[in-house]
Amino acid sequence: MSPSKTKIKVGLIGTGFMGKAHAFGFTNASRVFDLPVEVELDTVADINEAEAGRAARAFGFAKATADWRDIIADPEIGIVSITAPNALHKEMALAAIAAGKHVYCEKPLAPLAQDAREMAEAAEAAGVKTQVGFNYLCNPMLKLARAMIEAGELGEIRGYRGLHAEDYMADATGPLTFRHDPAGGGALADLGSHALATAEFLLGSVTDVMGDCVTVIDARKDASGATRKVEVDDIGRAFLRFENGASGSIEANWVATGRKMQHDFEVFGSKGALAFSQERFNELHFYSTDDAAGRQGFRRIEAAPAHPPYGLFCVAPGHQIGFNDLKAIEVAGYLSAINGDGAEPFNFRAGLRIQTLLEDIQQSSRERAWRKVSG
Amino acid sequence: MSPSKTKIKVGLIGTGFMGKAHAFGFTNASRVFDLPVEVELDTVADINEAEAGRAARAFGFAKATADWRDIIADPEIGIVSITAPNALHKEMALAAIAAGKHVYCEKPLAPLAQDAREMAEAAEAAGVKTQVGFNYLCNPMLKLARAMIEAGELGEIRGYRGLHAEDYMADATGPLTFRHDPAGGGALADLGSHALATAEFLLGSVTDVMGDCVTVIDARKDASGATRKVEVDDIGRAFLRFENGASGSIEANWVATGRKMQHDFEVFGSKGALAFSQERFNELHFYSTDDAAGRQGFRRIEAAPAHPPYGLFCVAPGHQIGFNDLKAIEVAGYLSAINGDGAEPFNFRAGLRIQTLLEDIQQSSRERAWRKVSG
Amino acid sequence: MSPSKTKIKVGLIGTGFMGKAHAFGFTNASRVFDLPVEVELDTVADINEAEAGRAARAFGFAKATADWRDIIADPEIGIVSITAPNALHKEMALAAIAAGKHVYCEKPLAPLAQDAREMAEAAEAAGVKTQVGFNYLCNPMLKLARAMIEAGELGEIRGYRGLHAEDYMADATGPLTFRHDPAGGGALADLGSHALATAEFLLGSVTDVMGDCVTVIDARKDASGATRKVEVDDIGRAFLRFENGASGSIEANWVATGRKMQHDFEVFGSKGALAFSQERFNELHFYSTDDAAGRQGFRRIEAAPAHPPYGLFCVAPGHQIGFNDLKAIEVAGYLSAINGDGAEPFNFRAGLRIQTLLEDIQQSSRERAWRKVSG
Amino acid sequence: MSPSKTKIKVGLIGTGFMGKAHAFGFTNASRVFDLPVEVELDTVADINEAEAGRAARAFGFAKATADWRDIIADPEIGIVSITAPNALHKEMALAAIAAGKHVYCEKPLAPLAQDAREMAEAAEAAGVKTQVGFNYLCNPMLKLARAMIEAGELGEIRGYRGLHAEDYMADATGPLTFRHDPAGGGALADLGSHALATAEFLLGSVTDVMGDCVTVIDARKDASGATRKVEVDDIGRAFLRFENGASGSIEANWVATGRKMQHDFEVFGSKGALAFSQERFNELHFYSTDDAAGRQGFRRIEAAPAHPPYGLFCVAPGHQIGFNDLKAIEVAGYLSAINGDGAEPFNFRAGLRIQTLLEDIQQSSRERAWRKVSG
Repeated sequence: MSPSKTKIKVGLIGTGFMGKAHAFGFTNASRVFDLPVEVELDTVADINEAEAGRAARAFGFAKATADWRDIIADPEIGIVSITAPNALHKEMALAAIAAGKHVYCEKPLAPLAQDAREMAEAAEAAGVKTQVGFNYLCNPMLKLARAMIEAGELGEIRGYRGLHAEDYMADATGPLTFRHDPAGGGALADLGSHALATAEFLLGSVTDVMGDCVTVIDARKDASGATRKVEVDDIGRAFLRFENGASGSIEANWVATGRKMQHDFEVFGSKGALAFSQERFNELHFYSTDDAAGRQGFRRIEAAPAHPPYGLFCVAPGHQIGFNDLKAIEVAGYLSAINGDGAEPFNFRAGLRIQTLLEDIQQSSRERAWRKVSG
Repeated sequence: MSPSKTKIKVGLIGTGFMGKAHAFGFTNASRVFDLPVEVELDTVADINEAEAGRAARAFGFAKATADWRDIIADPEIGIVSITAPNALHKEMALAAIAAGKHVYCEKPLAPLAQDAREMAEAAEAAGVKTQVGFNYLCNPMLKLARAMIEAGELGEIRGYRGLHAEDYMADATGPLTFRHDPAGGGALADLGSHALATAEFLLGSVTDVMGDCVTVIDARKDASGATRKVEVDDIGRAFLRFENGASGSIEANWVATGRKMQHDFEVFGSKGALAFSQERFNELHFYSTDDAAGRQGFRRIEAAPAHPPYGLFCVAPGHQIGFNDLKAIEVAGYLSAINGDGAEPFNFRAGLRIQTLLEDIQQSSRERAWRKVSG
Repeated sequence: MSPSKTKIKVGLIGTGFMGKAHAFGFTNASRVFDLPVEVELDTVADINEAEAGRAARAFGFAKATADWRDIIADPEIGIVSITAPNALHKEMALAAIAAGKHVYCEKPLAPLAQDAREMAEAAEAAGVKTQVGFNYLCNPMLKLARAMIEAGELGEIRGYRGLHAEDYMADATGPLTFRHDPAGGGALADLGSHALATAEFLLGSVTDVMGDCVTVIDARKDASGATRKVEVDDIGRAFLRFENGASGSIEANWVATGRKMQHDFEVFGSKGALAFSQERFNELHFYSTDDAAGRQGFRRIEAAPAHPPYGLFCVAPGHQIGFNDLKAIEVAGYLSAINGDGAEPFNFRAGLRIQTLLEDIQQSSRERAWRKVSG
Repeated sequence: MSPSKTKIKVGLIGTGFMGKAHAFGFTNASRVFDLPVEVELDTVADINEAEAGRAARAFGFAKATADWRDIIADPEIGIVSITAPNALHKEMALAAIAAGKHVYCEKPLAPLAQDAREMAEAAEAAGVKTQVGFNYLCNPMLKLARAMIEAGELGEIRGYRGLHAEDYMADATGPLTFRHDPAGGGALADLGSHALATAEFLLGSVTDVMGDCVTVIDARKDASGATRKVEVDDIGRAFLRFENGASGSIEANWVATGRKMQHDFEVFGSKGALAFSQERFNELHFYSTDDAAGRQGFRRIEAAPAHPPYGLFCVAPGHQIGFNDLKAIEVAGYLSAINGDGAEPFNFRAGLRIQTLLEDIQQSSRERAWRKVSG
């Protein structure tokens, strides 16, 4: 409609929860942001043809297909969104990259770091823009937290505690799922990846780790009803050392009964501190030693137009954005990067970094010893 | 795209914050819900033609116009969304109703109850479906609260405290705005309308009121820089009596320094209680005397798929929906009603009811006496 | 033991919960504060002689008696603590005053304002020091709140919301008690007295009230098992006007299911705001518009040595004082006043003031009309 | 006064903050509890004679001395309270034990586990009753937490996170103190001792640890103004394994800017979870999977008479006890044990246990390796 905007067509692989989230993301990003590109939802692929058709109608795509390779083969499609099962990410992404397309892949990039590395290197060689779905980082309050740290509002950073705990695996009678796959599964991989991404987003690179991965429910039934040994962690902990000199810890826990979204952190500096919980992700709690004596305390900063891009969603403070809005912010950042405006928010190289950290922590846990982070 | 769905075209009047919110609402409702109708964003009107064009592109409408009457005149348009200044609502709505269109009007329906009554009666006579934008009521946690009250989980309802406090008028140097217009302006009208809508949503009809409307900042500068007397309330309070026998109170306050979205309530019954704050609107706090002795306490229920339609936005609990998602829920309910499935969530008659309550409270305050609610 | 300190002997009337609290108060005040006087717990009176003896041993008094007049008659006793049933306060206090003793009386001073007035005037005529037990006001965080208001940290004060809600009368099968006595009973008298005392402590004099007193449970069984009409309020509300120009409201509620100590307030000024809950009375939440843009929020100030006399109880911040410690602070203030150092924290005149406010609110509620506060 | 009660005389060594706390503890325990023994505060010792005299008067002791050995030598004294500097604990305690006295010693029992062991063994050989001051464990809400765990209300216990963070060493310009003494100093020893005591109080024995002790501020000025290397940890972390099969972690941190009393824990079981913060220690948050679907959430249980011995301090729920009240509970438990009623709340053997755990964690950190807990 606007002659000045580049049009870009999107192909989506996968129609489940994350497929829907990607579709929302593209639609909402276009509505909320004044994007430099115009997105067209072109084709959606699902191995089940009827499902593909239903999703096309529901999500607003022009076409449906049962074969994801149709998307790769379509020269008009510029962006491929991959929300298929983790084990398929690599094949799909490499095919899309080979076809010169930008690739937006749900996390984890791949079950194993070596695969993620191949994907990142292929994308970089091809010069396409990539994105991995770490949407918690797109929260305006996390951007605020990072900006405050970088601006020195907390002084020298000294300590960090990160957490991502939920309870969707707390029921011991629940079945074995793909998340229990020894290749890439476990609470640390599923949730700890978020905790690690947030830790490095805020404090910079982790240099050393000491892992503690624990299997709590050691057997579950598989789809056939047979009891199978669980080989992945239900709780994954790590001590951390950061390049900036700070130390810290993270915990990933998917058997944390009662917790639904405890992606939390506290960061302590010489002049201030921050505390955050994803349970109330429109708030950031800030303590400053600059406050007057007898008037100091953690103050609850509510998300507001002063914290971009909150104001694009709502002109008034305190009204709160939702989980799906984080996805829209992520997509907008990615589309800007595709247009040449700024870096990708979290590209394949960043996704590889998280996979590497995870494997180092898992290896450290097996060896019961501290470990330098690889690469 | 789906041959089985009725198509319905939308015309939008107004391109400001609420115009954008309506556009989002229609788009998101279509993506999130499996709606019985297919919405087409057809025409957007703004007195500024360039602005109308910009909005059409940004919001995804096919056409733009500088004359809102083009929307009324278009026989293909089925729904007219009105987000123009309050003073214009009546003229636009009556025109749309006369043309047989469904009308979705931002709150307040009209500055005065007599106008709102005319609009409600016209719509009912014409048999069109109407909607007023009281989107807080679309929160799954408010629906949960009402369901719990209706199911008797709190026992007999005894007391209520409602609140809607923000601070956007706290700066005494801020200028006079349309919200200060003696015809329909003031904190009670602007915010108390929400507090009253929530109170009746949860407890049913209010029968008697005692108002206390106070002007705190009694003079402001108008656009010309001249100092003008403020004739509306900055704080509006009321004692309430409900038809169910309970008593309560509400407060509306737009000079509540520090408060951004304190749309809160507590309701006390013989067997339990609820506490809610819009500041954290994905939570509802519930106390039950059925809990074991020594184990009783307000429990923080987090929004989850158990609380429809939360699950359509997110399959996992605790991830949180945002303010704009409430608008999508509102639109979905309205579209269902248009399709003949269920009642309008909050139609012109309901909007009139709120205007009536407001005027009774304002009149009560002027007379310094209790007052039976009219009609 | 210390030759430089005046000794003063205490006689205590009543051995129930408040009797114990007074005894603790005297003991703890002596231990925590460096008081100018040395207190000796001399005689405790209870109509039940065995109970008086037990209390003397348990509380640390030298003597016990079944006749409270023994305390009045003892010329060595300087302070009389009255914790007997409310209906006896007046007779005991007047006798003690006539004997030239200082009198420390539990709240309410008397069921009716006219009695309270007689007591206050008698004490003033006799020149004895008096104290009524409004210990919430002795909280270091309330002193902080008042100091901040007086220092202008909130700017001009504009609005106030006070509350005191508990649930000890929520059970409709509970019996009629002395708190239901039409002469002086009811939730407003029992709990609203605290809410009003706090309101005036913080903002100064109330000049006008509009009351709304509601009986929720209209019949209860008396001691004989007979059903009796309840003639007092279960919920008492009031709109308020303050001499400083601010307006506000309070609610007293003893059927607030789930609430145990909701003695809360919020006060809004032109430059800041405070929020407090007795449920967490070692905290005061402070919002300041002086904070940097994007960094504003209510900050949770924890009680600390910076907030006297907290530091006398604990040298470290955040460790928290308890309800009984508030009593010790109250007693210390009273003993200082007796020694001529500063004013009584809350003397009979102040107690009378609260009784007057209560009666004005009750009368306003009966008349369904605003009322100037008497005297 | 009561002929049926044994009298026992107390001698107190040390007049600082903890000396005052012990004195309060004895006095308040006697007032609040119906104790089987009658305590007499007999002699207080301080190396500064004037200070000893002042303390005797202020705390209510009959005699003062500059030589703590006078207390040991007095055959009438039954309990010796030791609140002198840590380095002196052993000599004083062994002398008191040799004289057949019961000994109440502030934490840490001794800087090193080998000394603590000697003390514990001496006390056991002599048959005297001992107590170490771990008063957080005396909180009624912690007793409730333990009772709930033991009763199976959380199901099988799976994970634990403990914490004790404050900020009293956050200022890098603060001087070196006795808490920085390489023999027994550091955040882990000072605060981690509490975190470990709570962990074992709730979940039982720790069997394996992996420590991570970090010095953040590596140099401070000593009393002479000379810059000295800091040899103890500012942050001490540990992974834990419990005998019951659960895993967990603790962190001790005295440079946690903004935190004043973050002695927190979360414990996750198969059927429920608990969350607690000493910042609000009159509350325990409980999640139960037994709650109805859609009604689950962490519920805030407020301390009440249902949680003994809260009711001895206050007959009404939610009024809150304070830090000093925890000391009274500790003393009452100790006096009961001395009288033969029940076990000592936390005797020298328990104190030794904590010292052992600390040293194992410190050693594990130095070795950068997991370690079985000694003994």
